[in-house]
Amino acid sequence: MALIVHKYGGTSMGSVERIKNVAQRVAKWHAAGHQMVVVPSAMSGETNRLIGLAKEIQSQPDPRELDMLASTGEQVSVGLLAMALKAVGVPAVSYAGWQVPVRTDNAFTKARIESIDDSRVRADLGAGRVVIITGFQGVDASGNITTLGRGGSDTSAVAVAAALEAEECLIYTDVDGVYTTDPRVVPEARRLARVTFEEMLEMASLGSKVLQIRSVEFAGKYRVKTRVLSSLTPPDIDLATEAASGTLITFEEDEQMEKAVISGIAFNRDEAKITVTNVPDRPGIAYQILGPVAEANIDVDMIIQNASVGGNTDFSFTVHRNEYQKAMAVLNDTVKSRIQAGDIVGDPKIAKVSVVGIGMRSHVGIASLMFRTLSQEGINIQMISTSEIKISVVIEDKYMELAVRALHKAFELDQPAAA
Amino acid sequence: MALIVHKYGGTSMGSVERIKNVAQRVAKWHAAGHQMVVVPSAMSGETNRLIGLAKEIQSQPDPRELDMLASTGEQVSVGLLAMALKAVGVPAVSYAGWQVPVRTDNAFTKARIESIDDSRVRADLGAGRVVIITGFQGVDASGNITTLGRGGSDTSAVAVAAALEAEECLIYTDVDGVYTTDPRVVPEARRLARVTFEEMLEMASLGSKVLQIRSVEFAGKYRVKTRVLSSLTPPDIDLATEAASGTLITFEEDEQMEKAVISGIAFNRDEAKITVTNVPDRPGIAYQILGPVAEANIDVDMIIQNASVGGNTDFSFTVHRNEYQKAMAVLNDTVKSRIQAGDIVGDPKIAKVSVVGIGMRSHVGIASLMFRTLSQEGINIQMISTSEIKISVVIEDKYMELAVRALHKAFELDQPAAA
Repeated sequence: MALIVHKYGGTSMGSVERIKNVAQRVAKWHAAGHQMVVVPSAMSGETNRLIGLAKEIQSQPDPRELDMLASTGEQVSVGLLAMALKAVGVPAVSYAGWQVPVRTDNAFTKARIESIDDSRVRADLGAGRVVIITGFQGVDASGNITTLGRGGSDTSAVAVAAALEAEECLIYTDVDGVYTTDPRVVPEARRLARVTFEEMLEMASLGSKVLQIRSVEFAGKYRVKTRVLSSLTPPDIDLATEAASGTLITFEEDEQMEKAVISGIAFNRDEAKITVTNVPDRPGIAYQILGPVAEANIDVDMIIQNASVGGNTDFSFTVHRNEYQKAMAVLNDTVKSRIQAGDIVGDPKIAKVSVVGIGMRSHVGIASLMFRTLSQEGINIQMISTSEIKISVVIEDKYMELAVRALHKAFELDQPAAA
Repeated sequence: MALIVHKYGGTSMGSVERIKNVAQRVAKWHAAGHQMVVVPSAMSGETNRLIGLAKEIQSQPDPRELDMLASTGEQVSVGLLAMALKAVGVPAVSYAGWQVPVRTDNAFTKARIESIDDSRVRADLGAGRVVIITGFQGVDASGNITTLGRGGSDTSAVAVAAALEAEECLIYTDVDGVYTTDPRVVPEARRLARVTFEEMLEMASLGSKVLQIRSVEFAGKYRVKTRVLSSLTPPDIDLATEAASGTLITFEEDEQMEKAVISGIAFNRDEAKITVTNVPDRPGIAYQILGPVAEANIDVDMIIQNASVGGNTDFSFTVHRNEYQKAMAVLNDTVKSRIQAGDIVGDPKIAKVSVVGIGMRSHVGIASLMFRTLSQEGINIQMISTSEIKISVVIEDKYMELAVRALHKAFELDQPAAA
């Protein structure tokens, strides 16, 4: 018997029939003797419907009132799921975030969880009840409802699991786990049975959308064993089979780790590259270029500055493609003349491809295999950035799929993992 | 400058455009210097949608979870209305019942308000903000969300007005006040400028649907000046005109009261009559007949027992027409043989017509004018019951409209009120 947290997304909660399926799955775990806490999202479409209403009234809805509105979607979900469990004879009780309470800061629409009181939940679990808690939301110190931002239900589930010291947090979703890369690009992509927290964090930050990045950070900080698995299996499949399915995010590198050097290839086309040429190489120049960009609320991802030759250098960075025009305007209008730089050269047609793997810490030659593989395919590398467990390159975007497939093969990710 | 409470029903909150109209109306009162508290209902159709979802999952939804679900409708309304006020430059803040808090007992789906904390609301009003509070709901001592039952938003508004000692509680609705009778039956029906609390209570209990009866009880208990007025006037009409429109429920009989002896004719076709004939006239017989009816959860309205002639009597009462068959079954199956009564005779085709008026306290001859009028129209009276300020009769239902029109004329309700 263990304390288990389940999280179900909006698609899993999307209709009365699907909610009944969720109840059947939870009932199966409860019947096996587990103490069950369930964190559901709003029914699919509901959050968008509410935000749509708000925007008809205020083009920039007041954040506090938007949270008042948006939090109702999950409240409906928990009530319906509690009914569905009772309908199949399982005692259950639902709580909104403020009832637990799940305490957050007061950053409406993007609040951060500060603490979770476990006393009420533990009393219910002790009495044999399934406890259902709204995802996505909490309450600030003044008693205002807050929400955690899009995808926040993942974070709620992991945070609840941390507060209750749950044995495992199971995130049910419409994919059956974390893959070596996107199977739509590389049909040979394999599901990873395990992945480390650090790798998952890199994958999430590199654009792999399986889990919200803050939930991964939370899992890492509180060492919550988190499993991503499919909500599309029949709810009555064998519990042991279900419990071993999907991908487990672990913290023990040597415990049964797959021995692959790298665990996956991440990629995205979301970015654009900007280069400021002929920049005087003097202290403070990076701030003089990026300061005005930050003031315009533009996030910068990769930043590259080469060693200078003859006192001048080129300074490159990437921004989200949606903010490319805005960033170019800032640079041309204010930065260029002020620092007496050369041309501002931009390119929105780039892709970022990354190899991620905790194994590369102890292996040399990962970077050279990556660069050789791209070279053999005739793909030019425009920018490079590295961390301890990932290497990212920027290439022309039309080569992205080719690069991903070639790297997936070169790193033997299509082969069964060695024991 | 006064503290004013506005209540808007589901129709007034039924669309984004209508919510903007409500905001415009509230902004007008706020601009005139009033401290404003607004209690809106859920958008029309929303509560039914939520209850429909619940019933798809549990035919008898769990009451606590149903309240969790149903309370979200008003939460959406308050958030949207706060945004609509901010959109026109009026500072506003919304609260769910639990945030005020509005404390209730724990009778889920039909809770009663026990107390309302006014400190948070007063602080906001003092800071010049319009305060918007969810109707229909509160929180019990254990922190569970409760709802007050259908029409509960009227009660919420009056209770909030009582707690804040508001100058007046304005109930905006789709009729423009309380009438001497239903204008669909009597085109000459007049709107009453004022009506006493006691009269309003009788009218509500007799089926006039302008206000929920519990809200009238609340208004009476705490002496809340309550006005029923139209939400269909243009939101920018002159404030003084609007403030004097509709019908005011008063507590001071002699202060400018209309001098009419009776104030209105109420009627309904919701009831059915049942007579147990040849009942032995002995102590406890009423309990032996009505006890099993009450145990079957059937509400009884009028009860008539005549003085006995020769030791046996007839015992008659009325029930809601929906429960007629059930009541007849209880009487035939269990009561009849036990008390050795004669036949059980029932009639669902009845109507109840009542004259209501605080003036009849000091006037004789009201009953005889009522009975003579019905007699002149050839209408037979089947049952009579009276209170201090109303006389009700049961008649054959096909005569109902005729009776209402004749009584309306006989009591000169079609004439302008005397000063």
